[in-house]
Amino acid sequence: MSYNFSNKVQSLKPSAIREILKFTSLPGIIPFAAGNPAPQAFPVETITGILNKIMTERPVDALQYSISEGYTPLRDTLKKYMAEKHNSFNSEADDLIITSGAQQVMDLTAKALCNEGDTVICEEPSFIGSLNAFRSQGLHLSGVPLCDDGIDTEILEEKLKTEKNVRFIYVIPTFQNPSGLTMSLEKRREVYRLACKYDVIILEDNPYSDLRFAGESIPTIKSIDTESRVVYAGSFSKVLSPGIRVGFAISPKEVSSKLVVCKQVSDVHTNITYQMVADIFMNEYDYEEHLTGLKKIYRDKASLMLKHMDKNLSKEITYTAPQGGLFVWCKLPTDVDMLSYCKRAVENSVATVPGNAFIMNESDPCSYFRMNYSTPTDEQIVKGLSILGKLSLR
Amino acid sequence: MSYNFSNKVQSLKPSAIREILKFTSLPGIIPFAAGNPAPQAFPVETITGILNKIMTERPVDALQYSISEGYTPLRDTLKKYMAEKHNSFNSEADDLIITSGAQQVMDLTAKALCNEGDTVICEEPSFIGSLNAFRSQGLHLSGVPLCDDGIDTEILEEKLKTEKNVRFIYVIPTFQNPSGLTMSLEKRREVYRLACKYDVIILEDNPYSDLRFAGESIPTIKSIDTESRVVYAGSFSKVLSPGIRVGFAISPKEVSSKLVVCKQVSDVHTNITYQMVADIFMNEYDYEEHLTGLKKIYRDKASLMLKHMDKNLSKEITYTAPQGGLFVWCKLPTDVDMLSYCKRAVENSVATVPGNAFIMNESDPCSYFRMNYSTPTDEQIVKGLSILGKLSLR
Repeated sequence: MSYNFSNKVQSLKPSAIREILKFTSLPGIIPFAAGNPAPQAFPVETITGILNKIMTERPVDALQYSISEGYTPLRDTLKKYMAEKHNSFNSEADDLIITSGAQQVMDLTAKALCNEGDTVICEEPSFIGSLNAFRSQGLHLSGVPLCDDGIDTEILEEKLKTEKNVRFIYVIPTFQNPSGLTMSLEKRREVYRLACKYDVIILEDNPYSDLRFAGESIPTIKSIDTESRVVYAGSFSKVLSPGIRVGFAISPKEVSSKLVVCKQVSDVHTNITYQMVADIFMNEYDYEEHLTGLKKIYRDKASLMLKHMDKNLSKEITYTAPQGGLFVWCKLPTDVDMLSYCKRAVENSVATVPGNAFIMNESDPCSYFRMNYSTPTDEQIVKGLSILGKLSLR
Repeated sequence: MSYNFSNKVQSLKPSAIREILKFTSLPGIIPFAAGNPAPQAFPVETITGILNKIMTERPVDALQYSISEGYTPLRDTLKKYMAEKHNSFNSEADDLIITSGAQQVMDLTAKALCNEGDTVICEEPSFIGSLNAFRSQGLHLSGVPLCDDGIDTEILEEKLKTEKNVRFIYVIPTFQNPSGLTMSLEKRREVYRLACKYDVIILEDNPYSDLRFAGESIPTIKSIDTESRVVYAGSFSKVLSPGIRVGFAISPKEVSSKLVVCKQVSDVHTNITYQMVADIFMNEYDYEEHLTGLKKIYRDKASLMLKHMDKNLSKEITYTAPQGGLFVWCKLPTDVDMLSYCKRAVENSVATVPGNAFIMNESDPCSYFRMNYSTPTDEQIVKGLSILGKLSLR
């Protein structure tokens, strides 16, 4: 038989990154294309101990159906943590629910807030997983370029004026993926002001900010959300483990109750054992010390990668040193064919992500590619950059 | 600010069952409203052992990002199991992906196959979680009444002729939730013939069939799917644990590739540790023996409940003895106000589910309520039925 698919998913392709990820798992490929946490960043012994404790003391709670909002103790722990550490939870105005990774926050938010054909304004480039979540709801994506201090707010205002049915602005203000850029506080305030002026929601995606290894931390947009118009996506993927699929959404109470209904029909609730693990991990272990350890890992890996980029890569390739996150965003001269460069890199066993993956219209010209330093081993970083260094640009 | 929600979720309410579930967790309430597996059905020691093995031998695999299709060894195990035991996987035509519970199969299938306003034909009554998943995609639900041997195929054909844009027929052929009824083989063939004649997909939801404790097993509709038009939803919720959120979808390859794309943007992948647990459980332990143990638990609990229903309940309340699954579907005389009866029951600490929860239009008149025997303890079954027995019908 021939199958009829819905308009919204008909044109959807598997994410280029996920497809490349499959490729990078082939033996011998150096995985600069991935976005995986470093394996040594997983607190394996601690998690094993917690699993044992849970399965000994409360096995039925860890295996039985649970509620869609998430495990109440973990929600309470995160509310407190996000209020005290990030000033990003207001118990009067907000609620917090547990999701199956931050990816689910994108999916649920788009589903709850938007009709097909509505517009979402995104930083350009932006995270492909989120862009595809919005595309899969049949949304129109409108990209706003990034400056060194974050989204171009003049173009943002222009878009807010001219685009039809803008429902929310999607931003990753800290260590943006893929650019690695961080939005200045001034810009955050300006984006918020514009959201208020044009009466739209902001979806703030913040998976990396607890992993800042250099520079000064900058308040979240959620922390200046006096009008209750920010939905905040948080995640345990980079600070504990991505394979467990535990994230969370902080949002105005009314929005939160719709997100819960959407979550209920999506997967009932998030794996409950690992919600308990995350809660015990944050409460019974030294979470700040754990983060300090992670920051050292990523600081060292970033610094190793930058050192070998500086040493090996053509001076025609430009990039900025990241202060956190997992990526270096590299720019080729405009007369270089970026796709051909990335293709030749992977033929030489070095996988990077062509920048097209992160822009609104994949067929637009793009001179960037993304490099990841968390997944490869130190040896792979050294070897991979030696290979890239020998690759001709043209 | 005031929030604008999408048309499709604006009218969605939290599932009545999930809301009641919260209520049933209050101390002292006898939980005939739930649908939880019996706590003693969880193979706690085995799962603990497997978790330890995984965290000792392959911790990074158990915590790292994985692929959206699911853990390859588990997919292979299930393909083999479903082919050999249920004749329900055709390696030429079908693919199998892992989902975050069977609930996600409903969500992804509706999203991939239907535009807003399209029609889904459902058994009436049917599982509220699935109905709400379809509603949340803006679909029109068209109900077909059940006979003792399953869906009324004459009315089904009428609906297939008259309803516009029917995209699929949703059925739970074995131990249907909430009715407990099982569709005869003849009816399964007829439903399949009609799906072929009117060129629609069948979504077959089969969470309970491995828990048949009486009567003869009947082939799945998927097993007679010569035209590749059945999407099959399976689940570990009733045979291993619902809290782990691991299920699967078998579907024609072309459909499967769209489901994967939708899954990728929904939650990236299902909790990987527990995909590994499920795989090891099925391969390294005696899965059939485990199922035999579960069947004994449910046979005993069903029989205890029926005994005390027979003994205590008014003869005006009718019901059929189930041969599997978790529920008894009870009918009050039409002159009895069912909602008032259920309300008085819960005021007396016995929670049941009013039948309205399972019909297309919740405000239609309904004389049924659903009783669950897997969640309450034996003592609660005895006590709860003694309380219900003393409750006046009118």
